[in-house]
Amino acid sequence: MSGLTFRTNHQVRSHECDIQGEMTIPSLINEMVHVSGVQSAALGNTEESMLEKGLSWIIIQYHMDIKRIPKKDERIMFETEALSYNRFFTYRVFRAFDTSDNLLVEVMTTFSIMDMESRKMTRIDKAIVAPYQAEEIRSLLRQPKIQPVDEDNQLTMPYRVRYLDIDANKHVNNSKYFDWIINTVDMAFMLEHRITAITIKYEKEVEFGNMIDSSLSMTEESNGQIVTAHQIKNGDVVACVANITWEKR
Amino acid sequence: MSGLTFRTNHQVRSHECDIQGEMTIPSLINEMVHVSGVQSAALGNTEESMLEKGLSWIIIQYHMDIKRIPKKDERIMFETEALSYNRFFTYRVFRAFDTSDNLLVEVMTTFSIMDMESRKMTRIDKAIVAPYQAEEIRSLLRQPKIQPVDEDNQLTMPYRVRYLDIDANKHVNNSKYFDWIINTVDMAFMLEHRITAITIKYEKEVEFGNMIDSSLSMTEESNGQIVTAHQIKNGDVVACVANITWEKR
Repeated sequence: MSGLTFRTNHQVRSHECDIQGEMTIPSLINEMVHVSGVQSAALGNTEESMLEKGLSWIIIQYHMDIKRIPKKDERIMFETEALSYNRFFTYRVFRAFDTSDNLLVEVMTTFSIMDMESRKMTRIDKAIVAPYQAEEIRSLLRQPKIQPVDEDNQLTMPYRVRYLDIDANKHVNNSKYFDWIINTVDMAFMLEHRITAITIKYEKEVEFGNMIDSSLSMTEESNGQIVTAHQIKNGDVVACVANITWEKR
Repeated sequence: MSGLTFRTNHQVRSHECDIQGEMTIPSLINEMVHVSGVQSAALGNTEESMLEKGLSWIIIQYHMDIKRIPKKDERIMFETEALSYNRFFTYRVFRAFDTSDNLLVEVMTTFSIMDMESRKMTRIDKAIVAPYQAEEIRSLLRQPKIQPVDEDNQLTMPYRVRYLDIDANKHVNNSKYFDWIINTVDMAFMLEHRITAITIKYEKEVEFGNMIDSSLSMTEESNGQIVTAHQIKNGDVVACVANITWEKR
């Protein structure tokens, strides 16, 4: 039913944490994706070998369930597992555990493979995914539906895409979208609430020098949970949409 | 002549690198400072034990010599050593080596201890520095003099201090000043030049929500080296000054 599992340990650094001493979402995502890179390299799929074929892994969607966010200095264990793939997508789960094996965070991820020249998705090459021993499936795995931003009641902040937002993969690091999303949330709200879930969908890449707008609107659900809807627009083009579920601390 | 040495290993992550696949200055500084935190914790000086005394280490100045910047996936060894201290400052060196023990980067750092309530420097408490076995000295160790920005020929970019710029120490992470400095340099120039040295001096903290200006001016030395002078201003207050020396790739 699923593929090879790979594990690494990590001690949370001060610079990976926010003012509350909790690991930031961008840092968490970066370290998790790093773990899959280490697994891929161990299986012979280095980023370089992908680039030689003119291909690159891209992340289409994340769905994160957060039981408890790791804290500064905490020792955690990351686990990743290639679950399945179909014609255009591969599905991978990332998990973080504390030292007592309690699940802290679980992230379902949809990857695809991009042709670097056309900048378009290609069909999944079975030779590339074979080493992960994931199951071939015909269906699409659906992530939770993302509620759109209420444009009549939105708060918007502008951001410029900076030189250091681009990483060694030569495109804007996917964690930077979380920076733009989270930095738009009111600080007092952040201090009083914790994130329990995030769903994010990447629609279109942004590029160095773009001026982007990060918008959010907020709704309170009948169960008392608060959901923020987020949208990152590059001019008229939607680059990314997300929902975050919050609970009171 | 100097104190205890502490070493850790690190493999450079993709997200720690820029578009050229080279470790960014903010990532390098963050990992190095993390190493001194690990050493401090091993010696019983956790950040928490400092905070209980109402104190916090602050970084006053860095001088970095860069022989070769670490690359993506490279395995490097960090070394740190508490060298000496006087009434108000402690001096620490950080070094990065490749797997063949070649020195890649050396960073001389001036720390002081801040009283968290008054937000002012305190005298160095010998009980705090004793475990590092550094030498007590009477003199001040001078770092290279920083050339000021030529305000008649400066380029300036505005930045907003964001929520995620603040780390678990409850102030703006010192690496963020490098973000504001480096992201102001022209991208084409960055792609054609490499950094050989940086001197940075922190003058005054910036805070969440501040709108700061990062300015630079550029001069070509008689030996062909290019030096950029940098200044970060928060309104009329100079928060930080720096010089970067560049050579053609």
